[in-house]
Amino acid sequence: MPTSEQDFLRVIDRHFPNPGQPPGQNGGPGILLGRGDDCAIIDTGGPFAVSTDLFMEDAHFRRSYFAPGDIGHKALAAAASDLAGMGAQPVGFALSLAVPDDGPSGLDDSYLDAMLAGMAALAGRLSLPLIGGDLSRGPKLALDIVVLGKPGPSGRLLRRRQARPGDALLLVGDIGLARAGLMELEAKGCCVLADWPAAIMAHLRPEPRIADGLALAQIMSPDGPAVSGLMDVSDGLARDLPRFLGAFGADLSLRREDLHPEVAAYFSSHGEDPVEAAVLGGEDYALLASATRQRLPAVLAELPQVRAIGRVSAEPGVRINDGQVLRQGFDHFSRE
Amino acid sequence: MPTSEQDFLRVIDRHFPNPGQPPGQNGGPGILLGRGDDCAIIDTGGPFAVSTDLFMEDAHFRRSYFAPGDIGHKALAAAASDLAGMGAQPVGFALSLAVPDDGPSGLDDSYLDAMLAGMAALAGRLSLPLIGGDLSRGPKLALDIVVLGKPGPSGRLLRRRQARPGDALLLVGDIGLARAGLMELEAKGCCVLADWPAAIMAHLRPEPRIADGLALAQIMSPDGPAVSGLMDVSDGLARDLPRFLGAFGADLSLRREDLHPEVAAYFSSHGEDPVEAAVLGGEDYALLASATRQRLPAVLAELPQVRAIGRVSAEPGVRINDGQVLRQGFDHFSRE
Repeated sequence: MPTSEQDFLRVIDRHFPNPGQPPGQNGGPGILLGRGDDCAIIDTGGPFAVSTDLFMEDAHFRRSYFAPGDIGHKALAAAASDLAGMGAQPVGFALSLAVPDDGPSGLDDSYLDAMLAGMAALAGRLSLPLIGGDLSRGPKLALDIVVLGKPGPSGRLLRRRQARPGDALLLVGDIGLARAGLMELEAKGCCVLADWPAAIMAHLRPEPRIADGLALAQIMSPDGPAVSGLMDVSDGLARDLPRFLGAFGADLSLRREDLHPEVAAYFSSHGEDPVEAAVLGGEDYALLASATRQRLPAVLAELPQVRAIGRVSAEPGVRINDGQVLRQGFDHFSRE
Repeated sequence: MPTSEQDFLRVIDRHFPNPGQPPGQNGGPGILLGRGDDCAIIDTGGPFAVSTDLFMEDAHFRRSYFAPGDIGHKALAAAASDLAGMGAQPVGFALSLAVPDDGPSGLDDSYLDAMLAGMAALAGRLSLPLIGGDLSRGPKLALDIVVLGKPGPSGRLLRRRQARPGDALLLVGDIGLARAGLMELEAKGCCVLADWPAAIMAHLRPEPRIADGLALAQIMSPDGPAVSGLMDVSDGLARDLPRFLGAFGADLSLRREDLHPEVAAYFSSHGEDPVEAAVLGGEDYALLASATRQRLPAVLAELPQVRAIGRVSAEPGVRINDGQVLRQGFDHFSRE
């Protein structure tokens, strides 16, 4: 366990090259000054996106079944997914880290090292340099990650609440898969990877859909950009869809065949309706998008992984398969 | 205690107007989209400064002697001081908040309300709108604040490690005052305001020196901008000065008369050398700047609150009053 902030910064430097060092040298796209000053200095040459995401022990993860590398990976993945939800290109991130005191819940050097290695591997793949952060002791392991992004080649950042009645609703990624993984891990603890590999990995090592977000923002139809609205589904479709629709509603068509095979099998074998469980979801880090009916073919032609899951309706409320109305999704904060 | 994230967001909305709402409407300088989407969208029209700061119960504050409004104020003040340390103009901030579960350490509605009111009052004075955040439950109260700033009228953001041998070292603000306040509060708990009012207030309600930072960046001497380097002193001069100097050293001249009267009186009455205690400091949120000898008069003429406290030396190490060498300052992380 590093005993001073200085020691800890050396560990950080080992895992994350410091963009913009030495001072004055431009170390990355738009990063004029990296770590080591009061602030980092960035210039994206225009609008940029910023978001902050907490990842806290026993609220968002358990040390009993998350390997340290999983924790580092998922903290950054969850934050970066907010950039994917804007169709943004990553610029940099900052990490605030609270680590437990020494003692029974203390973390040793190799634990922190593995956690940062997991984070650094994802950061490298996403071209997301570490531009700053803060460090403290705390009762439990807690990470807060700030991500900065900018428009990709499309020049656009895509918002929620852009869909209009009649528009198609589009989904990229699996829903319910991480929920199945969480339920299995909570029920059995670690070492259940063999039974439900995709579900477990979806919970421990979600992949932010940065490339999909950038691609969705860039698709052109004959009369303009094809995708009107975009968000990342992190609290479950049931909770996030109303946030995407604003005043409108939706009619969804979601069959068992539309789900990942592990989602269908897992919830069936646990006596739950797979479609309902998938829609409740949580931590899916899928992307939800909207496009007018005319522009839908351009999207489906360009990105085969996109699935049309329904239509926006003027009538409020969300109906699935012409009947069932959505229950609430997932709330990390709620005690219900 | 709000029982869902939705309830909590209503409390947030009551205290902080949402810039950029409704979507598409520009709610503040450079804020194209405020809270309520995956990311906020900002456009500062050029380079911007970003920093993140943790403020955690029992590491940075105690609920026993911090009123809830003090906690909200100081969390934001400490973060905003990093903008002051770049001479930056505030653009916006994001708040990640972990609040204890219900139970003995739970917080009731009025507590959170008072905390946010304290934060909102300072945010209003600094023209720092809340652009986003995240919320979780956690074992103790913890706040992480991200601040965004941009160059002020000077067009400059001022860095550390710009000072050269022979340059004057400048200080704005009191050092050691918050340290005296912390010692008194730790020794006696609450209700000691009457004895050491300035020291207690310096610890509970520090004021980020945004206006001073902007002014320092703007001062012109006949041959160019007068101030070369700037930082905020948050870990004590002893720890922060080497970060400011880089490879160089300094000779400081600091007399008892240069200190706040409460600093001199407090440490004398506790058997400590006031100058040494002031230099150890911690959470001073003073500003440290550098200027060449030729440009010093312009600075002192423009900002009478600036005090010249010494000179940069080619020889490494920091000497005070021709003798004593600095010990280390304050490390929130260290267990020493």
